[in-house]
Amino acid sequence: SSGTPEFSSPDGRFTFGFGGRIQYDGSTTSGSRFDGESGDLNSRNIAGTEFRRVRLDVEGQITDPILYKIEMELANSTIGLRDVYLAGQRRFELGQGIVYLGSKFADSGLDGRTSSKWTWFTDRNVVSNDIDGVPGSYNVGLTTAFYGNHDDHISFAVSKGSTNESQTSSNNFLVRSRAHWNPINTGDVILHLGANGYYKDFDREREPNFVDRSVIAGAYNDNLRVTGPVVDAKDSTSWGLELAGLAGPFAAGAEYGSLNVNSRSGGDAHLEAYSAQVGWSITGEQFGYSTKQGVWTLPEIENPVTSGGMGHWEIMARYGAINSDDTRFGGGSGHGTTFGVNWYLNRFARLILADTIWTTNNKQSTLVGAPTDGYNGHDDGNTVNARAQIVF
Amino acid sequence: SSGTPEFSSPDGRFTFGFGGRIQYDGSTTSGSRFDGESGDLNSRNIAGTEFRRVRLDVEGQITDPILYKIEMELANSTIGLRDVYLAGQRRFELGQGIVYLGSKFADSGLDGRTSSKWTWFTDRNVVSNDIDGVPGSYNVGLTTAFYGNHDDHISFAVSKGSTNESQTSSNNFLVRSRAHWNPINTGDVILHLGANGYYKDFDREREPNFVDRSVIAGAYNDNLRVTGPVVDAKDSTSWGLELAGLAGPFAAGAEYGSLNVNSRSGGDAHLEAYSAQVGWSITGEQFGYSTKQGVWTLPEIENPVTSGGMGHWEIMARYGAINSDDTRFGGGSGHGTTFGVNWYLNRFARLILADTIWTTNNKQSTLVGAPTDGYNGHDDGNTVNARAQIVF
Amino acid sequence: SSGTPEFSSPDGRFTFGFGGRIQYDGSTTSGSRFDGESGDLNSRNIAGTEFRRVRLDVEGQITDPILYKIEMELANSTIGLRDVYLAGQRRFELGQGIVYLGSKFADSGLDGRTSSKWTWFTDRNVVSNDIDGVPGSYNVGLTTAFYGNHDDHISFAVSKGSTNESQTSSNNFLVRSRAHWNPINTGDVILHLGANGYYKDFDREREPNFVDRSVIAGAYNDNLRVTGPVVDAKDSTSWGLELAGLAGPFAAGAEYGSLNVNSRSGGDAHLEAYSAQVGWSITGEQFGYSTKQGVWTLPEIENPVTSGGMGHWEIMARYGAINSDDTRFGGGSGHGTTFGVNWYLNRFARLILADTIWTTNNKQSTLVGAPTDGYNGHDDGNTVNARAQIVF
Repeated sequence: SSGTPEFSSPDGRFTFGFGGRIQYDGSTTSGSRFDGESGDLNSRNIAGTEFRRVRLDVEGQITDPILYKIEMELANSTIGLRDVYLAGQRRFELGQGIVYLGSKFADSGLDGRTSSKWTWFTDRNVVSNDIDGVPGSYNVGLTTAFYGNHDDHISFAVSKGSTNESQTSSNNFLVRSRAHWNPINTGDVILHLGANGYYKDFDREREPNFVDRSVIAGAYNDNLRVTGPVVDAKDSTSWGLELAGLAGPFAAGAEYGSLNVNSRSGGDAHLEAYSAQVGWSITGEQFGYSTKQGVWTLPEIENPVTSGGMGHWEIMARYGAINSDDTRFGGGSGHGTTFGVNWYLNRFARLILADTIWTTNNKQSTLVGAPTDGYNGHDDGNTVNARAQIVF
Repeated sequence: SSGTPEFSSPDGRFTFGFGGRIQYDGSTTSGSRFDGESGDLNSRNIAGTEFRRVRLDVEGQITDPILYKIEMELANSTIGLRDVYLAGQRRFELGQGIVYLGSKFADSGLDGRTSSKWTWFTDRNVVSNDIDGVPGSYNVGLTTAFYGNHDDHISFAVSKGSTNESQTSSNNFLVRSRAHWNPINTGDVILHLGANGYYKDFDREREPNFVDRSVIAGAYNDNLRVTGPVVDAKDSTSWGLELAGLAGPFAAGAEYGSLNVNSRSGGDAHLEAYSAQVGWSITGEQFGYSTKQGVWTLPEIENPVTSGGMGHWEIMARYGAINSDDTRFGGGSGHGTTFGVNWYLNRFARLILADTIWTTNNKQSTLVGAPTDGYNGHDDGNTVNARAQIVF
Repeated sequence: SSGTPEFSSPDGRFTFGFGGRIQYDGSTTSGSRFDGESGDLNSRNIAGTEFRRVRLDVEGQITDPILYKIEMELANSTIGLRDVYLAGQRRFELGQGIVYLGSKFADSGLDGRTSSKWTWFTDRNVVSNDIDGVPGSYNVGLTTAFYGNHDDHISFAVSKGSTNESQTSSNNFLVRSRAHWNPINTGDVILHLGANGYYKDFDREREPNFVDRSVIAGAYNDNLRVTGPVVDAKDSTSWGLELAGLAGPFAAGAEYGSLNVNSRSGGDAHLEAYSAQVGWSITGEQFGYSTKQGVWTLPEIENPVTSGGMGHWEIMARYGAINSDDTRFGGGSGHGTTFGVNWYLNRFARLILADTIWTTNNKQSTLVGAPTDGYNGHDDGNTVNARAQIVF
């Protein structure tokens, strides 16, 4: 279906296919008061390009109800495993059930569960970055989902594992759940309601401290983060709410997330984030949205440039805010407003251009090699992010 | 043959195929007296899951007698090269000869040469872990094998290389050989006799000390190892013997291995290990065994679950002991008894569940970050290991 | 065309193919006066084998004028990205234009632009190693090329990016250009003229110093390098000239390169290198050369061994000299003469054997863990390099 080859054994039971993605990003920041200590050292006003994601995967089925996948991330010089699983699926009267064993992209939230191939902007919203994605975007363990017959689903996952091979302490324990429902779905008009949450234990040897550094204006600039509290964490609990809607060429989404981190030495730290986004498809098609999984996805492209058309064009705006102020554990806050343009040339190629006006107010630096002032106190500026993307 | 696609050029001379494996393991240990120094620090009683192996390979032939293969291991965040070679093979009157140039899985012993896809348990026996696999499971250099016409083979390999690119000293020199013969092979009844050995030189700059940490009850738990001597090694010599047999649904195997490490400062350290295992196929098929290579392999699966059957079920038991006691260089000892169940759903999927009752008696810790007591002195406990495996 | 499978979607617009290479090298050095400080420590007279390159790639087109490629290097335990790009090409009246976005093998010089699959020797010449390849062999950013209708081309590239994901400073800025022309091309006789150059800015935080260590007699031996100046670099500028020719079974090439590095604290360092090589195809075919790109490439192989022939045999010689003498910044010098044999069995397999007689005169060591004498002062010796290569 995606255009890449898929093979099958003579009896058709074993199948084997390939996929991949390239996301090549550019970023430039200006206006920060942290403009370099001596010359170009420790400046937030930096520019450049990087490969955000370079992925290859193989996937298929072993026999009718059993699936497998190996996906690897190549962009960071180390090999990253992403989806690596065995799965079994079954059709029931009330819907479809599926069980994954291994590493599976987590069902964390509306933006959090959206594939990086189809997020509206170059990065997910702050609720995903700072709350529901904090324990990692991949669940290593057992992941289950049930897709109902009426535009709804519920998932439940237990994680106690990692992809690293040197194990000198128990893996952290994490449970996650998410559900969504589309009470309205006329095809043209869709309403999305969702809720999500997780609970995580911290093994003191494996992860002695909860540390938080959240993307506010694109992932490229590592000096530009909202730094949260540092907590000698015992466990953490999170919950989130999702509201979204589509009507013809218009789409909107809003999310709220809350995270509580309990300290071993007593007390707790609290983080929260919210985000809202609106979009309009200039070329008239609906935004991509899956009523099965309750996530954003590839939109319809009525006139691909490869058929002489102009592709699918969207303009969109987003506001997001992070608040992790904490006297004892030292969290900061920040917010950003982003305006962007999305151009799908065809289903394989896409360009994004977006500008974020941001503010941060950090209390401490958790960045190794940070400057003496730690990018602390009030700062604001402007960041332009761009992406060229190929998906196959 | 394995179900994955294989391609060939129009003249049929160039071929190209894919393969892979996923091994997702779980492990939990209890009963060790090393139960954590302060809370959860440095405990042997840990639990969790990990990807033991995630591999992809491409292989094929360049033209009729010339073969190639590139296999990579993805589970450890660094890229590991496994089989990466050019090979030439030729049929003679007395058998088949093959020469590999590059990196080739070493013909180290009965369990040592068995692919991790087809070992009876989640890990190889202690003879492989502590003796014949110590210089590494892959031979980088020249590997030759001759497969006779009468269920016998002999191999010889010279290693002087690595897959690392920063070379500031000479590569270690290693020679290896192994031979097997099946004096009885009625199809239903098979007797296996084998012998193996190696000699290795140590470059003082590249590997100043011989260090040994052997798996006794599963690879997951890095705190649970039998630590051997630390020797300022000049060279080492090893030899081993193999005895195995199959009779209908029954199979058994036994191995002995001996390793001598010569010190540059005089004297030597001695390690030895032995292991015996028995198995019964509940569903009646023979255990998988190759009379060509003298190794365990994929068994027959008469009724795969994917054809409505119950798959191939085996129960098996194993005992293994390591002894590297040494006053001067400080080796320890340990032994373990394992009971397990093996379930081949079909030729692609397999589950293993096994329980090991183990004892260790270490004299020193060679683990970075080990506790002050170094997991030394007598300890015993119980470890359950499980595996879900996909091979394609 | 290369024999590996290529797939296409039903409408033929989306294509997808695989490729790879294995280069397994051996090397042994003798005659150096740095023969080890205590036993085998810090000797230049070392021997061994390594995987020089192990690469896999996927590539194809998304639709008629849009191409993509992902190539990864597996030989160094970390994942290296090589060609990873989106590209668009278009035919004009005067020639063919192409634009690459992402990471593209740089058009740096005659030897520098030649694929490692088709270089005459196991390593490129000193002009590529010490001058035009210094800023990296891959251009991350925008690369353009125009291939004229009359055996000529010009390229221009802007680089400001990396494949690393932790960005705490701006990426370095680099511009590159190269052009070639074949004023004579009778098919049998070809004359090559070329010129190349680049300008690079240094971000002080990202790359505080210009450091240079050049291969003079094969890449294996990391102790055997010509170490150049260490400069607190502000920017650097390079230019180079190329002259080559083919006449029947004879081929020759010569290159000169100059590099100037400006210090932030004032003054500059100067490096230069030149190289000349001659070759004769014993079996009579022409050497491989592309009049489109102005590079060496796969030669004709009239009688592959796989058709009962003897393959394509070449003998060749090369001289190269590096001069980076600098009182203030401490550069050294060196030169080498190499004699070699090249045997293409068929278009997939090739063997190289070459011997280099070399001299180095280093002034400082820039190698971590170098001996106290730093391999400094006059030294000479002999290095034999060999390669077994598979390309598919």
